[in-house]
Amino acid sequence: MKIYGVGAAEGIGIGIAKVVKEQSVEVVKRNISDIEFEVTNFTEILELTKAETEEMSRSLEKNASAKEAEILVGHIMLMSDPMLIDEMVNLIKNEKICAEYAVEEVCNQYAAVFASMDDELMQQRAADMRDIKDRLIKKIMGLESNDLSTLPHGSILVAKDLTPSMTAGLNPENVLGIVTEFGGKTSHSAILARALEIPAVVGLSDLPEDIEDGSEIVLDGESGEVIVLPTESEKSEYTDKKKKYDEAKKLLKKYLTLPSVSKDGKQVEIVGNIGSPDDVKKVIENGGEGIGLFRTEFLFMDRDCMPTEEEQFESYKQVATAMEGKPVIIRTLDIGGDKEIPYMGIAQDENPFLGYRAIRLCLDRKDDIYIPQLRALLRASAFGNIKIMLPLITSMDEIREAKSLIKNIKAELDEKNIAYNKDIEVGIMVETAAASLLADLFAKEVDFFSIGTNDLIQYTMSVDRGNVKVANLYSAFSPAVLRSINRVITEGKKAGIMVGMCGEAAADPLLVPVLLAWGLDEFSMSASSILKSRQIVSLCDSKDLRAKVDKVLEMGCESEIKDYLKKISEELGC
Amino acid sequence: MKIYGVGAAEGIGIGIAKVVKEQSVEVVKRNISDIEFEVTNFTEILELTKAETEEMSRSLEKNASAKEAEILVGHIMLMSDPMLIDEMVNLIKNEKICAEYAVEEVCNQYAAVFASMDDELMQQRAADMRDIKDRLIKKIMGLESNDLSTLPHGSILVAKDLTPSMTAGLNPENVLGIVTEFGGKTSHSAILARALEIPAVVGLSDLPEDIEDGSEIVLDGESGEVIVLPTESEKSEYTDKKKKYDEAKKLLKKYLTLPSVSKDGKQVEIVGNIGSPDDVKKVIENGGEGIGLFRTEFLFMDRDCMPTEEEQFESYKQVATAMEGKPVIIRTLDIGGDKEIPYMGIAQDENPFLGYRAIRLCLDRKDDIYIPQLRALLRASAFGNIKIMLPLITSMDEIREAKSLIKNIKAELDEKNIAYNKDIEVGIMVETAAASLLADLFAKEVDFFSIGTNDLIQYTMSVDRGNVKVANLYSAFSPAVLRSINRVITEGKKAGIMVGMCGEAAADPLLVPVLLAWGLDEFSMSASSILKSRQIVSLCDSKDLRAKVDKVLEMGCESEIKDYLKKISEELGC
Repeated sequence: MKIYGVGAAEGIGIGIAKVVKEQSVEVVKRNISDIEFEVTNFTEILELTKAETEEMSRSLEKNASAKEAEILVGHIMLMSDPMLIDEMVNLIKNEKICAEYAVEEVCNQYAAVFASMDDELMQQRAADMRDIKDRLIKKIMGLESNDLSTLPHGSILVAKDLTPSMTAGLNPENVLGIVTEFGGKTSHSAILARALEIPAVVGLSDLPEDIEDGSEIVLDGESGEVIVLPTESEKSEYTDKKKKYDEAKKLLKKYLTLPSVSKDGKQVEIVGNIGSPDDVKKVIENGGEGIGLFRTEFLFMDRDCMPTEEEQFESYKQVATAMEGKPVIIRTLDIGGDKEIPYMGIAQDENPFLGYRAIRLCLDRKDDIYIPQLRALLRASAFGNIKIMLPLITSMDEIREAKSLIKNIKAELDEKNIAYNKDIEVGIMVETAAASLLADLFAKEVDFFSIGTNDLIQYTMSVDRGNVKVANLYSAFSPAVLRSINRVITEGKKAGIMVGMCGEAAADPLLVPVLLAWGLDEFSMSASSILKSRQIVSLCDSKDLRAKVDKVLEMGCESEIKDYLKKISEELGC
Repeated sequence: MKIYGVGAAEGIGIGIAKVVKEQSVEVVKRNISDIEFEVTNFTEILELTKAETEEMSRSLEKNASAKEAEILVGHIMLMSDPMLIDEMVNLIKNEKICAEYAVEEVCNQYAAVFASMDDELMQQRAADMRDIKDRLIKKIMGLESNDLSTLPHGSILVAKDLTPSMTAGLNPENVLGIVTEFGGKTSHSAILARALEIPAVVGLSDLPEDIEDGSEIVLDGESGEVIVLPTESEKSEYTDKKKKYDEAKKLLKKYLTLPSVSKDGKQVEIVGNIGSPDDVKKVIENGGEGIGLFRTEFLFMDRDCMPTEEEQFESYKQVATAMEGKPVIIRTLDIGGDKEIPYMGIAQDENPFLGYRAIRLCLDRKDDIYIPQLRALLRASAFGNIKIMLPLITSMDEIREAKSLIKNIKAELDEKNIAYNKDIEVGIMVETAAASLLADLFAKEVDFFSIGTNDLIQYTMSVDRGNVKVANLYSAFSPAVLRSINRVITEGKKAGIMVGMCGEAAADPLLVPVLLAWGLDEFSMSASSILKSRQIVSLCDSKDLRAKVDKVLEMGCESEIKDYLKKISEELGC
């Protein structure tokens, strides 16, 4: 039986179903007499669960990436929220009811609030809330939680959905595929599967209820195809597919040691995006020629106070050192009221993506936020090839103000005889319509551009990238977005500065040839996309492509452009 | 004593202070025994207050504009909110407490939630909540409310703040000026003062507590200067100023009968923005040559169900008929999840301005929303020069889909022999970065452009226009915004279509010469700005200005551009 879902992590999986049943827990509203015991017991279980989650988070960090572990850190944050805990404890005390009921009530309330917001991130937070609820209730009631750390080799994991707490114990050696009924391309299950490089299909609304443990299953994590109980011919077809996929993957490995050079000899840099120093390893393993985007938000999140300059310095230095002189572009804090950072005291904006965030916040809070970060960056620049990148620039004044801050800090470091790179490059993210419109003027003011396509699409199309209801308009292939990108590259090159790209479009197989032909110097992406992109670059003749890809600038529809670029890609043999 | 506030409504006011003291009401938490009486009494007072508010709203509509009256309709909505009422009634019942205390508690809670959101609109809603609270409590406790309908001629109203319920009774014949401690340019007091053409200064944080009733006061509603107890020389200075202001205003009246023509003979259209058919009168009185933007949201707001096609038809027809063949550009529904329209069932978006709204919502809900509106517009087009305008366009597909809907409705009307204008023009708002980038392609697809600067600035600068914390970036003088506007006009003219502007920038005295020189055909604005803009146009030589104003396209800073345009304006003698 063949069913279709969302391809969430590339690769072919062939194996034996291991069905993870959700133990549905019926919570009964029980009156209790010993309130004190109930509260103490609840508090202990809460602490225990938090400790366990911390342990899981550490293990996840080892197996996958820091990003995955952060989800669990988010759980710990939620479980540490005094309001949430108070509400549960008060409910137990005031209503004299059992802890599991209080947990169910309060968590459901919170989850409902999150779920009512039409945003993928909030949906995710609702899922987090439900995950926490289930674990706490099971613990209170003394029930077993699912343990996926003991799955036998050759398993295809089949579940309604994977919660972060379940996947923390997952052993990628034994699990050959993941199949879930719920979730989308950016759900936890999907992100985790990609990080662990386990082929996965999610969002299978037709997934039968009655798949038996031990049934054979094959799946294609790209097309989203899943076959339960495949016929012999289907199985052999999938075995072939798997062979081809594995070979292609192996073939890619040869690009590990090759330069990023097109057929006509144009050399570019293919570099990695990272979210914490732990991610550097994967970039190096995948042949990254540097770091094109080091997000510094991790230093500020999931904690109670501002990171010290020293802490920041150590992180920046660690990455600069590990990259051994290769470029490391570090973006200054890009955060706003949509992130929960209570100690910063930032109010929630009505439209967070159009609000008080990133460079706006930093220039408004120079003393406690921006100067310490810039000083840490300058000091760390003595240990490698660090470049400073300013996010969300929309005006010349912002650039000049940041540069003047840097100048002052340099003078201060000189005075104190503290080492730093005197020629440190300062560049900007080009991710707003304003920056694209003013690219010619900004190019004279900075050392490099990095086009942030995720935000550039969002602001060009006036579409929140987390809003599923308008997702049809969010596309890098939108003619307006491509014109804007072309303009930025052209103006940057005219002024003689480096132009890179650190949004997801930089690794899109259909766009790599376009960007190369237009003259993009640097492609920054997730580590896992580096080799594939290098292969595509090597298949391109940038001069030959130029006239061909320029045609998209005259096309009016996204679908027309996509079809056209697919043809070019086929001709190239990508 | 001279103090400075925010100039909120132009003009010079000279008169006698009429100080409106806030009666501070102390609400005591009283236990009650007759719960039934308390609830019945509260419910009656609530209904009475609602009825009174409705009466006020009608009176306000007569004296000022429909927009002002809408604020009170908002109050009625809040007072009809079942959740709010339930909470109050439950508090009375469960806690056995007096109604005034329940009102205070619940209203304060709601006001605090609104006030915590960093958005001018939400701040306003918090003020509305407090206004309602005060009125209800005073009524319950049998206290008098402030009545401003009996102020003597020559009064300068002095208050902490004006609430909509207070200003409903205001007689513009008798009140020569308004002075308030709180409020900003877009607060109720300010909007009302402008609508009634009463000079006003708001946000006077230094306003002394002890101004006595009957003190002389002079004020300048443009500079924001207020003098309490002016000296003789100050008084005569202000009398001169007032004379000059009144003369200039009178001078403007001569432009009522003059065409909108520049010195070098370039004819443009200066037209009005309206929010409901009631606003037409003022546009005609001020010499508007048409309607450049008729917002249709009023038809959908403050009600329980969708307006019928018939209702819409009547409104559109009313405006078209009143304008007697002059152009009436009607914008199709521009609404989203930030507006509370419960019957539409639209969830709140995380970033409403980047979300599911306007054309996106309409094309997604053709049957119940868009087709009835388009059909009403087409039918009304038989009665005047109606043009259809599509908001928030970012892609060619949206334009084509809307045009194809219109085509189908036309065929249906033909079949039924229903009259409509077969050559009805269909245009788009150019208000997103995408539309600006694709202006050349869109111009081939539509009959006219209207640049919506309020949103264009917002999306170009990635700044929520309601967010005070990033207001410094929100400016029509931003170099990126001006480049974008220039591009849209240039591409529109190249394609031979009409290019208008319906954002606030169209009436900015510094920008009118720029827009004229770039070739803008139509300037749409509030009725009160029409004559001034016509005067400026008549002072300009568009050809002569062209080279001068083009220089702003090479300037990098907002302040530089503003200074430069001020000089040009002075040279013109505007």
